[in-house]
Amino acid sequence: MANLREQALHIHRAHRGKLSVQSKVPVDNAHDLSLAYSPGVAEPCREIYNRPESVYEYTIKGNLVAVISDGTAVLGLGNIGPHAAMPVMEGKAVLFKAFAGVDAFPLCLDTTDVDKIVETIKLLSPTFGGINLEDIAAPNCFIIEERLKQELDIPVFHDDQHGTAIVTLAGLINALKVVNKKMDQIRVVLNGAGAAGIAIVKLLLRLGVQDIIMCDSRGTIYEGRPYGMNAVKEEIAKFTNRDRIEGDLAKAIKGADVFIGVSVAGAVTKEMVRSMNRDPIIFAMANPVPEIMPEEAYAAGAKVVGTGRSDFPNQVNNVLAFPGIFRGALDVQAHKINEEMKVAAAYAIASLISERELRPDYVIPAPFDPRVAPTVAKAVATTAMETGEAGIHVDPNEIYEKTLRLTRTAVG
Amino acid sequence: MANLREQALHIHRAHRGKLSVQSKVPVDNAHDLSLAYSPGVAEPCREIYNRPESVYEYTIKGNLVAVISDGTAVLGLGNIGPHAAMPVMEGKAVLFKAFAGVDAFPLCLDTTDVDKIVETIKLLSPTFGGINLEDIAAPNCFIIEERLKQELDIPVFHDDQHGTAIVTLAGLINALKVVNKKMDQIRVVLNGAGAAGIAIVKLLLRLGVQDIIMCDSRGTIYEGRPYGMNAVKEEIAKFTNRDRIEGDLAKAIKGADVFIGVSVAGAVTKEMVRSMNRDPIIFAMANPVPEIMPEEAYAAGAKVVGTGRSDFPNQVNNVLAFPGIFRGALDVQAHKINEEMKVAAAYAIASLISERELRPDYVIPAPFDPRVAPTVAKAVATTAMETGEAGIHVDPNEIYEKTLRLTRTAVG
Repeated sequence: MANLREQALHIHRAHRGKLSVQSKVPVDNAHDLSLAYSPGVAEPCREIYNRPESVYEYTIKGNLVAVISDGTAVLGLGNIGPHAAMPVMEGKAVLFKAFAGVDAFPLCLDTTDVDKIVETIKLLSPTFGGINLEDIAAPNCFIIEERLKQELDIPVFHDDQHGTAIVTLAGLINALKVVNKKMDQIRVVLNGAGAAGIAIVKLLLRLGVQDIIMCDSRGTIYEGRPYGMNAVKEEIAKFTNRDRIEGDLAKAIKGADVFIGVSVAGAVTKEMVRSMNRDPIIFAMANPVPEIMPEEAYAAGAKVVGTGRSDFPNQVNNVLAFPGIFRGALDVQAHKINEEMKVAAAYAIASLISERELRPDYVIPAPFDPRVAPTVAKAVATTAMETGEAGIHVDPNEIYEKTLRLTRTAVG
Repeated sequence: MANLREQALHIHRAHRGKLSVQSKVPVDNAHDLSLAYSPGVAEPCREIYNRPESVYEYTIKGNLVAVISDGTAVLGLGNIGPHAAMPVMEGKAVLFKAFAGVDAFPLCLDTTDVDKIVETIKLLSPTFGGINLEDIAAPNCFIIEERLKQELDIPVFHDDQHGTAIVTLAGLINALKVVNKKMDQIRVVLNGAGAAGIAIVKLLLRLGVQDIIMCDSRGTIYEGRPYGMNAVKEEIAKFTNRDRIEGDLAKAIKGADVFIGVSVAGAVTKEMVRSMNRDPIIFAMANPVPEIMPEEAYAAGAKVVGTGRSDFPNQVNNVLAFPGIFRGALDVQAHKINEEMKVAAAYAIASLISERELRPDYVIPAPFDPRVAPTVAKAVATTAMETGEAGIHVDPNEIYEKTLRLTRTAVG
């Protein structure tokens, strides 16, 4: 770990950060200058003024995503502020480019006020084709995303919520095939009512899961619970915990088919796993130490285990989702990333592992599988066009081929 | 011109804009990922959290300038809005990189409200090492810049004001040598009370010019003029037009040594030039058609003529100033670009033409002279350190050498 620390500090220091802004046009002489800048630059300005949609032809908007944070929920570090959040946002931009050719730019805001964040992002929006919210604490992240989705006509996506939810669901889709169970017949217990937890529940409901029990640090969440509730939990409670179970996680998890943890290290014991229904599925995504370590979960009878860590199989890694999702959304000038597009992304990720290849330790593709971003981009773009969210029509196969060229990484 | 138009549209369309965001670190495998992103990225985050000034070591902040516009005064096109302004701001970012290795990023804001612009830029400031305001109409540009200078501790620079002023003054410094006159003995008449005009007057005063008459479309400006005044003009009137001349430009220009125009095509006639003092100096910077064409001015007796156009000698081109100014300011982590730094930049630009080389048609160096950005950067950094504006101390010669390596352009 000391070695990782030194190496990580070194690569950040060596280049003074991880991004650079480069010109795509030459500026070697006065003629170049007269085209890229004055007087020639007035021509695309006039075109855009006269035909606003041509901003996608003449500027970087159509391939540009803002990675925006207020620094309140950065990795496991918590509220470290906008300056200290910069390396993560730069890193995210690096991944957008490496995995899907998306130009992304980090913007860390010096406020944690919801109204100011919403206003700032709205005022910035002319420059960008999409907004990726990142590491903003709950419940602000819900309010900010919801308001921006209503007020902007470019995609807004809070990756900590939806990226995690989409990849988890992809893993669950495949895990259920391994244990031969169906979405509408399982009971899922979810621990952790933060950004990711809420998004996972919403997507589970959309995929047809009917029996979900959500827990937070105070135990099961149910309608009208007299403590520790907020607007989002109240809303979720209407659609979950249909048996109105009151009690702690240990009580909730009894007989469950699936446990999903976005909570804290060690929240799940072997006894809890033993109390689950046959062939338990465990996604234990607390970082860096999961709710239960995979070897313990397997020892207690778990059939499929996933974590957030790259040193175990079945890593729930957001990089499987966000690059391809924005690639697909940008390429059809989508106005939103709607629920159907998220579901399509989850099935696209899951589809990369054939029935023949499926194994308990291979329900989620590897981050460096070069098919991931192209497959996700194609599925998201197709669904955007089918659901009326796309601004333009593009052949989905072209999007696949283009993304394949842009994803410069090889199978890991 | 049709040809220029087609070529300009083509290069903008061919790449869909002029900028890309690139990674400076590899992302080819899981190890790379663990350093540039999770879990290694937590290390620089922790460092910055514990030692805030290390944000300059571990992130792109120290080399990053935001190019910000509200689209209200774009080139000669006027108030065309934030989308149509994008090609210009992208072009500016291209020039920052090409001439001084500064990473610059365009942000076009969807508001023309002063308070909102100030607030937005303040909230964005953690990410950036400097703010370049661009193409914001007067008088808002004055208020926005002034407030940001007071409230931020990174350099804020409205290029349309100060870039133009600095290069004009550089030209004037050399032109006065040609005609053998002194700053404190000349009368300067300046036509146009917009952003650039006001900034030029302020810098003229700082360089020791004592006799300045400013005109706008209503004629000479004097204290208490009962029409067409605003707060900025009232302020300027206190320091100019000491003889309280009332009347039009033709009246004001009589006997003047220098005419500076940032106004409209054709504002100056041959008769006006003939009415000036011996060896008139004319900077006619209306674009694309100057206040008087150089050949007419020379025919009427002008000794030195400069314009904003690249097809005439003595081009007042902001690219001579802003790349080197920000290079120098960033390299010493300057908190401001103060008046002394602007004056130093003007003298640095002027110094590149030796007494031996000086000619009436060569008082301003060419945009592609590779000595310009290094010389300006060194002078600005030195002055920042001397005036207590620098956050760190750096050997000015190192800044010169570094900038010389970064300026990738050759003598034009």
